[in-house]
Amino acid sequence: MTVRVAVTGAAGRMGKILIEAIALNEACVLAAAIERPESSLIGADAGELAGLGKNGVTLVGDLSAVLDDFDVLIDFTVPAATLANARLCGGAGKSMVIGTTGFNAEQKAELEAAIAPIAICQASNFSTGVNLCFKLLDMAARVLGDDVDIEIVEAHHRHKIDAPSGTALSMGHVVADALGRDLEKVAVYGREGQTGARERETIGFATVRGGDVVGDHTVSFFAEGERVEITHKASSRMSFGRGAVRAAAWVSAQAAGRYDMQDVLGLK
Amino acid sequence: MTVRVAVTGAAGRMGKILIEAIALNEACVLAAAIERPESSLIGADAGELAGLGKNGVTLVGDLSAVLDDFDVLIDFTVPAATLANARLCGGAGKSMVIGTTGFNAEQKAELEAAIAPIAICQASNFSTGVNLCFKLLDMAARVLGDDVDIEIVEAHHRHKIDAPSGTALSMGHVVADALGRDLEKVAVYGREGQTGARERETIGFATVRGGDVVGDHTVSFFAEGERVEITHKASSRMSFGRGAVRAAAWVSAQAAGRYDMQDVLGLK
Amino acid sequence: MTVRVAVTGAAGRMGKILIEAIALNEACVLAAAIERPESSLIGADAGELAGLGKNGVTLVGDLSAVLDDFDVLIDFTVPAATLANARLCGGAGKSMVIGTTGFNAEQKAELEAAIAPIAICQASNFSTGVNLCFKLLDMAARVLGDDVDIEIVEAHHRHKIDAPSGTALSMGHVVADALGRDLEKVAVYGREGQTGARERETIGFATVRGGDVVGDHTVSFFAEGERVEITHKASSRMSFGRGAVRAAAWVSAQAAGRYDMQDVLGLK
Amino acid sequence: MTVRVAVTGAAGRMGKILIEAIALNEACVLAAAIERPESSLIGADAGELAGLGKNGVTLVGDLSAVLDDFDVLIDFTVPAATLANARLCGGAGKSMVIGTTGFNAEQKAELEAAIAPIAICQASNFSTGVNLCFKLLDMAARVLGDDVDIEIVEAHHRHKIDAPSGTALSMGHVVADALGRDLEKVAVYGREGQTGARERETIGFATVRGGDVVGDHTVSFFAEGERVEITHKASSRMSFGRGAVRAAAWVSAQAAGRYDMQDVLGLK
Repeated sequence: MTVRVAVTGAAGRMGKILIEAIALNEACVLAAAIERPESSLIGADAGELAGLGKNGVTLVGDLSAVLDDFDVLIDFTVPAATLANARLCGGAGKSMVIGTTGFNAEQKAELEAAIAPIAICQASNFSTGVNLCFKLLDMAARVLGDDVDIEIVEAHHRHKIDAPSGTALSMGHVVADALGRDLEKVAVYGREGQTGARERETIGFATVRGGDVVGDHTVSFFAEGERVEITHKASSRMSFGRGAVRAAAWVSAQAAGRYDMQDVLGLK
Repeated sequence: MTVRVAVTGAAGRMGKILIEAIALNEACVLAAAIERPESSLIGADAGELAGLGKNGVTLVGDLSAVLDDFDVLIDFTVPAATLANARLCGGAGKSMVIGTTGFNAEQKAELEAAIAPIAICQASNFSTGVNLCFKLLDMAARVLGDDVDIEIVEAHHRHKIDAPSGTALSMGHVVADALGRDLEKVAVYGREGQTGARERETIGFATVRGGDVVGDHTVSFFAEGERVEITHKASSRMSFGRGAVRAAAWVSAQAAGRYDMQDVLGLK
Repeated sequence: MTVRVAVTGAAGRMGKILIEAIALNEACVLAAAIERPESSLIGADAGELAGLGKNGVTLVGDLSAVLDDFDVLIDFTVPAATLANARLCGGAGKSMVIGTTGFNAEQKAELEAAIAPIAICQASNFSTGVNLCFKLLDMAARVLGDDVDIEIVEAHHRHKIDAPSGTALSMGHVVADALGRDLEKVAVYGREGQTGARERETIGFATVRGGDVVGDHTVSFFAEGERVEITHKASSRMSFGRGAVRAAAWVSAQAAGRYDMQDVLGLK
Repeated sequence: MTVRVAVTGAAGRMGKILIEAIALNEACVLAAAIERPESSLIGADAGELAGLGKNGVTLVGDLSAVLDDFDVLIDFTVPAATLANARLCGGAGKSMVIGTTGFNAEQKAELEAAIAPIAICQASNFSTGVNLCFKLLDMAARVLGDDVDIEIVEAHHRHKIDAPSGTALSMGHVVADALGRDLEKVAVYGREGQTGARERETIGFATVRGGDVVGDHTVSFFAEGERVEITHKASSRMSFGRGAVRAAAWVSAQAAGRYDMQDVLGLK
């Protein structure tokens, strides 16, 4: 049975990506598209907005007007909007996928109360590939143990202002945790001059910055005579959109409760 | 407690690698080194033979003479020799790691009988990395499912006479099995001319031949917006040696029975 | 001195990329933006159209109306339009960068006549990186000669219907020509089964198809003990846009004549 | 005409590699193999020593005894030995390839005098691939100029005690020189925390240490929409051996004078 999906913030950058991702997922159909009521685009065709051609779904300015039309809402907006949407969905028994970030403590508590009756999936990174890689890295680190040297190389565009990337650090935490190491103590962020031979327990980070690289990550496990590498390369935000839609299809069939991408991917 | 390891064929190419691998493994110690009795090297120091400097273990020509000195025998020789060694180890309650290949049906049956009382580990490929990759590939294929295009690229030295490599084909079987596909039907071994758009269920193999490449394998899972890659690169036969020694340490602590590298690595 | 650049087809996909590329090039400024007179966008701000914010250049429907405003016209449109534009530019002494393809013989002759008084740059691929790689490949092949095995691996998105890519074949021609080989005779497009050892003079092509890969090309030169690899990875059409704008800045300072990207890049 | 090559230090690690490299080079033949007179291997077959099977060249303890047998001497020994050999070769009009390092000022002057009558090739790195890459990098940097971000990633085995590698630094100097930058001022050896956006003129070095990696170097030029990468991967010291033998064949045909690998490869 096809899952009917609604999207809030549908005329924004992520909204358009979600509309395209829904069109690419055979298990789902776009059932409603919502924007702020003051948007000049209310009444436009959501498919055209996303550059996909007309799909017959009209952009509306009020979630409550379309509550009967969908099974799951995907919400990548701002905390206040997500909170209001969660109250409506909670009351109507509609599942949610929440990609909004930046909730303060009070908002978190309110969100928790609002979604108690429903199934929701919330995550900081909806990419299927990144979440899969976390699991692969955990397994690889446990199998290879202290017989290998672990190094993480990441590359991002020239405008990125911090290093290493949050995803690279998360990968480092996964392998450090699997090996019982404290990443704070074993991380090495650069090498210059007389460094001495490598110590086994260190985890090296190497950072490349240039051009328009969306995001490349490679974790290498070097043993004597061989190496294993696990790589993720993002080419567009579509990876987040596709993961969120996959989460929507999955969460629509779950009992009330709070889930994350590891649940969706069956990695727990 | 340190595991005492014996090596047969100790003056051969793989024997020397095993002796070096034992020296690199803190859980093991070389306890005996055996060669054919007619070898002119009987009496030499095994460490010197392996280029490691003297280690005090003298090459002997008769396994039965050193049966009390070791806990596990690693045997990468030929079927007839392995069979004779298995009878001795079976009788003495010594574990074995068997890397010998080419047993015929009769020899297999005899081997089975000889090793009934002991724990053995037998595998066609002892590389930890390759065996780990098989498991990672299975997991990745199950999680990513039919949302990705799967392609396998392998590179080997210019003298290799078949293509794709056996390891590449094994990797293809792992992902095909995980996805319920028949590799015979979905494998594509080259593309030329007007191929048309890619069909999702195909699994592509690309083969590179050149120079002295020991063996590189990359399996790529391409989704819209991202890709995940799992790579294995061999740089020497030491990867086999290290895996065999790891198996020796592990099998020495097991109950009688037949095990493989997936058992050793805890991947079952 | 800043070069004033005009763009025809300015509201189209490539037109918007060219407008953005001009904004990124410090040596150039957008001086005029032209579309077909029947476009509903005539009168719009060209910067806004390209998603860059207002830049004060209004989209016009007639090249002749802005002939005094620019030094070079970049034209990626269709043969008939390019021909008309070339007559105007030829008459006014304005240089041109021509990315239009598909001229028939008659149109080619007419174009030749029209541009006789001016400097133009025409190319089938304006990417600086690809054109540079052709030159690097030629040099590498001449230096390494018959001591190496040459293999070309390319990856493109799942919708590509032919293989190998035109760029991969061009790369193959460059190395074959440098080595005095006939690519038709030495190209290998796939390997399966008992292939025998590699023959030195062959040039292998391996083709990967999957996801949304814009275009990756790697040419590897494998020697005993080492390899050299030259890689190009495209991430967007912006690479073509930037190359065309670079050509515009360059050609505006040239004497009348016909040039290509190898001239622009100083690679002849 | 086949070039007759002699090797000093023929029973050492590099000597054996040179003997194998000569066997692989169709333009050359091993004509003499020399070791210190006190070596217990004097009189052995040089081919057998190198693991190639008998080749009929007997290891001798005195270069002067075989001066008539060869055209070029390849010498990777120690300064004092090389100096003595250079005097003999200079007197006999035999060319030399010199890979010995560590001459002091006095020895350099004596060497200069000794080789005045002959053609010699001396270099710090005889790898054809590395020397080719220096030239490719110079060309790429000049063509791409300030439109790209340049980053250098190198990987070496866990025992390497300094970073970045000398070859990586040389590559950095090549691109910095081509762009008129001072490497001391623009090199970045690691990134951590709030780094801010990348500055165009910087050249980033990223260092990976692990396992038994012989030596990988990749220089990436990142532009908007594309990147070009030049990679060198060493798999064994054979790359140095082959380069030295190539130099021997080349230098045997030159007029008296001092040459380096850029001369041999025709890259000046």
